[in-house]
Amino acid sequence: MTSPRLLVNSETTKYPIYIDTDLRYQTYELINKSLDKKASAFIIIADDTVAGLYLDEIVQSFPAENKPYVATVPSGEASKSFEQYERLLTECLKNGLDRQAVIIALGGGVTGDLAGFVAASYMRGVRYVQMPSTLLAHDSSVGGKTGINHPLGKNLIGAFHPPSAVIYDSGMLNTLPEKEWRSGFAEVIKHGFIADPSFIKWVEENIQSFKSIKTDVLNELLRRSIKVKAEIVEKDEKEQGIRAFLNFGHTLAHSIEAELGYGRMTHGEAVAVGMLFALKLSEKVYKHSLEYESTCKYMNTLGYRLEIPAECNRDRLLERMKLDKKASYKQINFVLLKELGHPELLPVKENDISELLKKEGNLK
Amino acid sequence: MTSPRLLVNSETTKYPIYIDTDLRYQTYELINKSLDKKASAFIIIADDTVAGLYLDEIVQSFPAENKPYVATVPSGEASKSFEQYERLLTECLKNGLDRQAVIIALGGGVTGDLAGFVAASYMRGVRYVQMPSTLLAHDSSVGGKTGINHPLGKNLIGAFHPPSAVIYDSGMLNTLPEKEWRSGFAEVIKHGFIADPSFIKWVEENIQSFKSIKTDVLNELLRRSIKVKAEIVEKDEKEQGIRAFLNFGHTLAHSIEAELGYGRMTHGEAVAVGMLFALKLSEKVYKHSLEYESTCKYMNTLGYRLEIPAECNRDRLLERMKLDKKASYKQINFVLLKELGHPELLPVKENDISELLKKEGNLK
Repeated sequence: MTSPRLLVNSETTKYPIYIDTDLRYQTYELINKSLDKKASAFIIIADDTVAGLYLDEIVQSFPAENKPYVATVPSGEASKSFEQYERLLTECLKNGLDRQAVIIALGGGVTGDLAGFVAASYMRGVRYVQMPSTLLAHDSSVGGKTGINHPLGKNLIGAFHPPSAVIYDSGMLNTLPEKEWRSGFAEVIKHGFIADPSFIKWVEENIQSFKSIKTDVLNELLRRSIKVKAEIVEKDEKEQGIRAFLNFGHTLAHSIEAELGYGRMTHGEAVAVGMLFALKLSEKVYKHSLEYESTCKYMNTLGYRLEIPAECNRDRLLERMKLDKKASYKQINFVLLKELGHPELLPVKENDISELLKKEGNLK
Repeated sequence: MTSPRLLVNSETTKYPIYIDTDLRYQTYELINKSLDKKASAFIIIADDTVAGLYLDEIVQSFPAENKPYVATVPSGEASKSFEQYERLLTECLKNGLDRQAVIIALGGGVTGDLAGFVAASYMRGVRYVQMPSTLLAHDSSVGGKTGINHPLGKNLIGAFHPPSAVIYDSGMLNTLPEKEWRSGFAEVIKHGFIADPSFIKWVEENIQSFKSIKTDVLNELLRRSIKVKAEIVEKDEKEQGIRAFLNFGHTLAHSIEAELGYGRMTHGEAVAVGMLFALKLSEKVYKHSLEYESTCKYMNTLGYRLEIPAECNRDRLLERMKLDKKASYKQINFVLLKELGHPELLPVKENDISELLKKEGNLK
């Protein structure tokens, strides 16, 4: 009998996180165990690439009289759009789903965010379960942030809507391209930086390449990284305070992604760049070293490109940072590290950011 | 100094309800008094007809250095659309509104629901204030239900997102057309039926026509009717139980509205028809009289048309009832009255509904 590896106990709800190899064969059983009240029906909202690989195995775990409906969405950030959102709501209605229906989000962060927002707003909210298929989604699948993009910025429309369970089949990561490993791994390192420096050490010792990670190491990596996330979410579900620390590296990352057009750079690749920028900014503000150089070196071994892409315009990056959800009263707020494992949210002068972008980023 | 007439103390939040003549001249002051944390900016989302009448007076209550942004929406149910929703989110972004901004919904239920859903989902949720301008909105402005329509049904997309305050300037009702009085008054009577039969008596004694209601009677009417709503919402914010009682009359009403096309009949006119149908159904189920005849008579004096419109198709009405948010596990659930003031939510057989639609509604 599979037991949850972690439990999230937040202000409004609690839910289990299952992490193990081959959980997809037990999907139906694990979901039912997690629900307080029976589901009237299920619909799987699946990334179409992931559906091609794993959907059949998941559907087979359901009994014949209770097979889920299925709706697929194209892989990629472009699916976090008003169009897909509206289309999926229509699918739910056409299948006659009521308020007791349960949505299953199968895919990476894009699918989870999109399906989660559908769940948050369909009939003013139905339950959903996250089944992350990427390393990056180990982060986004926990904590209940859902949403879609607006042409003016990422994740600007959405809701806080916690899942009823997270079912993380690490076996599905076998088919993940290296680029996607790199994307997700940036959030792993981020969790170490903001809450658990010993975890960074563990990671550096255990992982030298994405091709050779053993099952046990992978499951432990997921557990420790998700634990950081879960503990923050438990204390601050709706990002009134410390949850903002999870945005370490994201202020610049979101701006770069928007500036390049979504999908040109993976989210994690942008976060890696943003994180090192925030580390450098932290060193400047607090005037002491934070292992910037050694982190760059380690990340380079893993194949990260750490420069801000040259086609980014400095003034436009700054304008976009002002639309960041952490910005308030027209001021840009950055998550900085006072020490490793000790983040703070601080207002930073536009000019200081601009100067550093020019100096470190070589941006005009 | 104006004090709130009522306070809503729900599971997740509490907020004041101000009811009085000419509150619009104190808008800025009343909003600031209600906010726990200062607003970074304001945007008024206003019904365009109401804006033409009262917007200037409201804007004048704001100091020069803190004038609100304004976005108007066309009057009418058709504005509760994906298109308007998306457009308003874009307006908020273009004005650079951050998470500390406050949205003011100025108008009837359409504006309140739409602006409320914008507030619920803009940056995953910002605060908003309801300024109802219709009698009908005395109901919808309290309780935090927000949403938009889908071509397949009313209010199918939305969120529970309580306002930070309700500012009800009953003076704005002076310009309300009689048809709109009739629409809102149906919800007043509904509140009496489900929770306070003595209020129905009071209403019948004090109101014989919508043209001659005195200020004091009107404010008392609003207070007592909103009180019923507020007390239910306090006990069941997210419609897990007794809040469904507020849907008395709405199962059929929503279906009629969808069947005719939104806007052909006002919401309250449809609720009046639905309420009398539910009353008749209650008399059948519980086998005793519930003042069906006297209620019909009183409502006729006020100019209500109480027949189900002949162009409604019986089978299609039933199909639409199955999409009702109270439906579960494919069964239609009706709010019925065991006695006056004592509602219950009961599954009703499709066939029984169909028979009564045929008999009472003369529908084919």
